[in-house]
Amino acid sequence: MTRSADLSPETRAELWRTAHALADAARDVTLKHFRARGLTADNKDAGGFDPVTVADRDCEAAMREILAQMRPQDAILGEEQDAKPGTSGLTWVLDPIDGTRAFLSGAPTWGVLIGLADDHGARLGIVDQPFIGERFCGGFGIARVTGPTGTHTLATRPARALAQSILFTTFPEIGTPDDRDAFERVSARAQLTRYGMDCYAYALLAAGQIDLVIEAGLKSYDIMAPLAVIEAAGGIVTDWTGGHAHQGGRVIAAANPAVHAEALALLAG
Amino acid sequence: MTRSADLSPETRAELWRTAHALADAARDVTLKHFRARGLTADNKDAGGFDPVTVADRDCEAAMREILAQMRPQDAILGEEQDAKPGTSGLTWVLDPIDGTRAFLSGAPTWGVLIGLADDHGARLGIVDQPFIGERFCGGFGIARVTGPTGTHTLATRPARALAQSILFTTFPEIGTPDDRDAFERVSARAQLTRYGMDCYAYALLAAGQIDLVIEAGLKSYDIMAPLAVIEAAGGIVTDWTGGHAHQGGRVIAAANPAVHAEALALLAG
Repeated sequence: MTRSADLSPETRAELWRTAHALADAARDVTLKHFRARGLTADNKDAGGFDPVTVADRDCEAAMREILAQMRPQDAILGEEQDAKPGTSGLTWVLDPIDGTRAFLSGAPTWGVLIGLADDHGARLGIVDQPFIGERFCGGFGIARVTGPTGTHTLATRPARALAQSILFTTFPEIGTPDDRDAFERVSARAQLTRYGMDCYAYALLAAGQIDLVIEAGLKSYDIMAPLAVIEAAGGIVTDWTGGHAHQGGRVIAAANPAVHAEALALLAG
Repeated sequence: MTRSADLSPETRAELWRTAHALADAARDVTLKHFRARGLTADNKDAGGFDPVTVADRDCEAAMREILAQMRPQDAILGEEQDAKPGTSGLTWVLDPIDGTRAFLSGAPTWGVLIGLADDHGARLGIVDQPFIGERFCGGFGIARVTGPTGTHTLATRPARALAQSILFTTFPEIGTPDDRDAFERVSARAQLTRYGMDCYAYALLAAGQIDLVIEAGLKSYDIMAPLAVIEAAGGIVTDWTGGHAHQGGRVIAAANPAVHAEALALLAG
């Protein structure tokens, strides 16, 4: 198996070029469907036509075509199609549209998630918001966002007490009742809890805007790309017991070790 | 008092030019503070320096300067300064940053709200999101959004059952316990409930993306501009009993009369 430490600078550059090519293609496909009349029309009759699934599938298919050209040796794990094995020890982990409900509602908080993993976990990630035109990148020494106000280095917030911290999650109805109790123990101590941002919350954490994101029921493709971006920006992503998070499940992303430890203790009960 | 029906085409064009000049100035000021290190740093010690209030105040001051030049005869009602009387029968209703918590969190769901009212209520409105670069405009025969994908006509969604509708509100902890019970009667019947969008939810409703926004505890400057944009796009904005909403309070915005009536009946209990 390949370890990232073994990858040459040329290979790393090629992997970044590939990741951007995937994100560019995903922008084209998703923006064709986002806020389109046909998509928002209520069309779920007999045939069961589901326009969001069309957007998801077209987007993932476009990304897989590019990988077949640029990196046929790599494995692929995507939300919409079967896993494809590879020979390089590297796996592209793709969520063509993270935040389907936001996408359906016209809200620009969904994103295209492009992760690259090896046996050690996430190595490179892109969280792309096509409508805003904002791309958060992390891995191989890069931690950078390019968007409406130019290009900026990503760096998570320095330590502050949980009582001064901003916490995000997607749904107030997070996970199981026990999960929700655990979440609310943290939420009750935070300065501010906000909902509804989908993967954009992880991007805000990497950009040094917020302190914590806590979620449950994630899949690997929901978290691999955000994990790479946040780690590159200096943050920490684990499961609720402090273990690896790249398989998904119950995930906590934190801006720094202090707020991570404080939240983890509360999640434990 | 002036009735909008009496305003000449030249005056209406001048009022739109003024509204855009206000929104342009607000973009410059707010983007200086949005996601700035100084703003997100925890700086609330002895002196009580509140950087969001600085952004709010600078933004409203910039808008008032423009009004002093372009429309000195109009009254002003803004969140940050005392009301200014006028002689024209027209009042500019300004919320320099609606969605302070989103602004503090780096999330682009806050907006600059610029409304123009006469004795009959809202006549013109802009909901502007400076970071995305998206401006929703409604009034005097205009219903239009300009943003990352160009310029589009605003039109609310055609009628569909509440069970197929998308409902937004800013906080799960809406209003009083009674308010919350009423909200949850509607939420329980809707296809999807989403949180956390601030004024951007009204913009999505005007753009035909969602069906309902229900909020409580609003001020006049929270709702005047969205009200103008939504009415121009074919939607309905009232209080929870079907009366006028331009004074704020408990507000329901709906894409069409059918979903408005269905939600109103559930809010009544």
